[in-house]
Amino acid sequence: MSEPTLGVVAIGNALVDVISHADEDFIANQRAYYSMEKGAMTLIDETRAVELYSQMGPGVETSGGSAANTMAGFASFGGKGGFIGKTADDELGKIFRHDIRSLGLRFDTQPLAIGAKTGRCLILVTPDAQRTMNTFLGASVELSADDVDENLIAAARVTYLEGYLFDREQAKQAFAAGAQAAHENGHRVALTLSDPFCVDRHRHDFLGLVEHHTDILFANEEEIKSLYMQDNFEDAAAAVSDHVEIAVLTRSEKGAVIVSGGKRIEIPAAPVEKIVDTTGAGDQFAAGFLYGFTEGLMLETCGKLGALAAAEVISHVGPRPETSLAALRSKAA
Amino acid sequence: MSEPTLGVVAIGNALVDVISHADEDFIANQRAYYSMEKGAMTLIDETRAVELYSQMGPGVETSGGSAANTMAGFASFGGKGGFIGKTADDELGKIFRHDIRSLGLRFDTQPLAIGAKTGRCLILVTPDAQRTMNTFLGASVELSADDVDENLIAAARVTYLEGYLFDREQAKQAFAAGAQAAHENGHRVALTLSDPFCVDRHRHDFLGLVEHHTDILFANEEEIKSLYMQDNFEDAAAAVSDHVEIAVLTRSEKGAVIVSGGKRIEIPAAPVEKIVDTTGAGDQFAAGFLYGFTEGLMLETCGKLGALAAAEVISHVGPRPETSLAALRSKAA
Repeated sequence: MSEPTLGVVAIGNALVDVISHADEDFIANQRAYYSMEKGAMTLIDETRAVELYSQMGPGVETSGGSAANTMAGFASFGGKGGFIGKTADDELGKIFRHDIRSLGLRFDTQPLAIGAKTGRCLILVTPDAQRTMNTFLGASVELSADDVDENLIAAARVTYLEGYLFDREQAKQAFAAGAQAAHENGHRVALTLSDPFCVDRHRHDFLGLVEHHTDILFANEEEIKSLYMQDNFEDAAAAVSDHVEIAVLTRSEKGAVIVSGGKRIEIPAAPVEKIVDTTGAGDQFAAGFLYGFTEGLMLETCGKLGALAAAEVISHVGPRPETSLAALRSKAA
Repeated sequence: MSEPTLGVVAIGNALVDVISHADEDFIANQRAYYSMEKGAMTLIDETRAVELYSQMGPGVETSGGSAANTMAGFASFGGKGGFIGKTADDELGKIFRHDIRSLGLRFDTQPLAIGAKTGRCLILVTPDAQRTMNTFLGASVELSADDVDENLIAAARVTYLEGYLFDREQAKQAFAAGAQAAHENGHRVALTLSDPFCVDRHRHDFLGLVEHHTDILFANEEEIKSLYMQDNFEDAAAAVSDHVEIAVLTRSEKGAVIVSGGKRIEIPAAPVEKIVDTTGAGDQFAAGFLYGFTEGLMLETCGKLGALAAAEVISHVGPRPETSLAALRSKAA
């Protein structure tokens, strides 16, 4: 066991978001011909990515990836951490690497030398503030166990795993390597389920990971219901409580429920003037929670920091905080 | 002479903006070691671009370029047009080409096969809403007279030239070719001066172009004063009135003055709730004015459309309209 010098190291997809506005007709037309889930994430291949991009309106490019977005929020609170994820040796990869390092986070994963391009998520924001995501994972899924820097993991209080990585076998092995390294050093493993469809595709593996390797689980209502195949949130919350030390269950405008050691803590949603773009909320809730947790704060305070970060990110387009969360926290206190 | 089927074709720099927030200390530190003009544009080379980028915070990438931004606004009003500018055959070039075509604009300039990368503008937005721009022109300046598609120019009522292109000799020749093609077809040539420092660097050439080849001139107060080396706006406005058919002189919160045929029309600035980022204003004023002009509207109405578009763009970060200018126009009417 070593004394941790970092708060959180995340293992996740290294993606660049391409964000564009679209109307309901555009989504309906796409859905007539292709697999696309409004408000959720659909995996696409490179051919489809090129085609969809050619049909989309003008875009804004910005670094994304669920766990990487969480780390951006964590750093914005003042947390020290790192990220492990696979980019390609191309311009979008350069953008991703620049953005994450410029937040003060450690990021040393070698870019993929040949093969797939840097992954991207083509995001359509509709007037109802929903995001419809179409992800070409690209180089992201080439992350292997060799990329998991055990020294970096050993330095962190929490190793945070992104469920989306479960969509490829090799990345799943990288995951297992990360979890093992964290536990060997006596540190905690956190997991975010990422998406109800992702949970659906990999329920068995997720259940094994949650029951045997996860200390802190992040999930929203749909995801936790999908994991335990329950129609009712309370039943799903009861099921998870036996399997992890802490479950952080987010419920959009109903706030969040933290279940730990037989106790249940209700966290109300933080007020938002105008909701512009909803889906970064879960990633930023995790950011606030993990910052509070690695600073040794009470679970209720961790939850409130999560709610604060979630409220910030849904008040603008874009998946990472646009104002200093450390400053927001001071102001709220 | 042919009957025009397009409103405006612009010839300008094809750049991708990298927008990042910075505090005053960051700018002061840079200025201690490098040439950087707060609130203005400084040309930088590739080495400096790489270095500055490594020091900047996380960025958002979005298509830019002064005249290309004007065309985005023009298209947002419902105008039909095209753009001529040089990208490289790389990912930023793909982003630029996608974004401009997705607005419904014609863009057929062949990307540069080898050599420079797609140009980029590293933009630091300070808390006072000023933009400090650092431009690596890259492939942009490789635009040559061969790239100027005379059929495209012949199809447009107005050919719009971006002053920034004057920073390289070859691009200046492309400019001259464009102006000549427009006039041979009996159409108008518009010019925007772009930047007082750019005017300073090329005053003699600009004066020649204004006096002999320009029908519609766009300039802000500093630029027109710099062009005629006058300390006083009224003296500069008097000087330009003899040289062009229409001069559109923008004055930030004081609105704009249109000088034409001995008449002077004052256009008040449109109201803005909160100014977030000032510098796209001139480009969007030109967009509104050119839309009105190519639709055959009265000069005063053209000016009001310019003020409307300028007010929209300074109310958010980013150089292109985020709401439909056609819808804003309907609402204002």
